[in-house]
Amino acid sequence: MAFGVETLDQPGVLASVTRVIYEHGANITYVGMTERGGDSVRLYFEVESAADEGALEAAITSLPQVVALQREPSFEKVFGKRVIVLGGGAQVSAVVMGAVNEADRHNIRGERISVDTIPLIGEEHIAEAVRATARLPRVACLVLAGSLMGGDITEAVVEVRRKGILVVSLKMAGSVADVADLVVGDPLQAGVMAVMLVASTAKLDIERIRGRSF
Amino acid sequence: MAFGVETLDQPGVLASVTRVIYEHGANITYVGMTERGGDSVRLYFEVESAADEGALEAAITSLPQVVALQREPSFEKVFGKRVIVLGGGAQVSAVVMGAVNEADRHNIRGERISVDTIPLIGEEHIAEAVRATARLPRVACLVLAGSLMGGDITEAVVEVRRKGILVVSLKMAGSVADVADLVVGDPLQAGVMAVMLVASTAKLDIERIRGRSF
Repeated sequence: MAFGVETLDQPGVLASVTRVIYEHGANITYVGMTERGGDSVRLYFEVESAADEGALEAAITSLPQVVALQREPSFEKVFGKRVIVLGGGAQVSAVVMGAVNEADRHNIRGERISVDTIPLIGEEHIAEAVRATARLPRVACLVLAGSLMGGDITEAVVEVRRKGILVVSLKMAGSVADVADLVVGDPLQAGVMAVMLVASTAKLDIERIRGRSF
Repeated sequence: MAFGVETLDQPGVLASVTRVIYEHGANITYVGMTERGGDSVRLYFEVESAADEGALEAAITSLPQVVALQREPSFEKVFGKRVIVLGGGAQVSAVVMGAVNEADRHNIRGERISVDTIPLIGEEHIAEAVRATARLPRVACLVLAGSLMGGDITEAVVEVRRKGILVVSLKMAGSVADVADLVVGDPLQAGVMAVMLVASTAKLDIERIRGRSF
C-alpha cells in the first residue's frame, strides 16, 4: 500500500503519522518527503501488512495537521527492480545501452526493470557509491564499468554482495573483477546479462555461471 | 546529516526513532528500510536542522530496540541530482548515452549528477511513471524519449512541471512536445542538454531557451 499525505509544515508531523501507522499494525518500508515549499509538505509512504487499509487511511486523514491523503502506485510497481551502473563515462554509457535495450524486452512482457547510472572518478568516490547502493531501495544488481578498480572498491563490493546484491564487473585492471559474481568483457553484453540476471522472464541463472568470465 | 540505524525487528521501531528525532528538533527528509531478514532491520535516515547532532545520535543509540548507529554520506552527496529518462528502449538508450557522457564531464569537476532510466510502453504506464518522478527524491529533469506521447502523459507532464521538474521532450508525434520546457530532435543532444540544464558547471539556462525546439 502506497500513499501520499499532504500536511501542514509543522514539526512532528512525521512522528504523528508514523505513530498512527504503527497503531494500525502496519510496517513502514519507505518514507519520502517532497515539496517543502510554502506551508505544506508532501509525505510519501509505502507500508506493508496494514490490517485494515481503509481504517488506516481514515485515521491518518483525521490527524489535525493532515490536509489530504491520496493512494499512489508504489515505486516497486512503477519502477521495479533496479540495475545500477557505476564507473567511467565511456564504459557506463556502453553498458547502459545494452541494459536499457534488454530491460525494454522484459518490461514489454510485464516486468518492471529500471537502469540507473552515475559516472564517477576516484577510488574513494566509487567505493562510497558502491556502499550507498546497499542503502537504496529495490537494487538487484550492480555493474562496475571501468578500466581500473581495486582497493577500497573491492572491499565495498564484498560488502554489498554480502547484503544480497549481485555484482557484474567488466573485464578490467584491478581486483574488483576477482570478487564479482560475473565478469563480462563487452560492455553492451555486460548490460544485457545484468538485466537478464534480475529478470523473471529471462533464463540466465547466476547459480550456473557464478565466478565465470565471458 | 545521514545515518543508518540497525534495530531489532519489532513493531513501532520506526515510530520510536522518529519520535526521538522530532524531540531533538530535526526534520526528517528521507527514511528508507533495507535488509528485512533475520531479526534485525536497517533503517536509513536523512535529517535536517538537528540542534545537536551528537545528542541526537546518543539518544537514538540509547533506545532499547537500537543495536547500532552509523553516520553515512547522504544520497544527495553520493548520487546528487537526478535526470530521469523514460520511454521507448531505442530512444532511451540513445538519450542516456548523451546524458551519461555529459554527466561525466560535470562530475569530474566535482558535481554529482546521476542518470536514471526505465523503458516502458503504453500511455497509462508512461503517465504513471511521469507522475511518480515527482515523488522520487532529487529529481531535477525528466526526458521523454519516444515516438508518440500524448493524452494522459501530457497531463502528467503539466503536473510534474508545476512541481518544479524540468521536462525535455524528443521531437515526436503527440502533444507532449507542446507542453515540454524544451524539445530536442537528436536523442544524444537531448541527453546532453538535459544534463547541462541541471549542472551548476554548465551555462545552459532554461530561462533563455524555454519553449524552443532544437
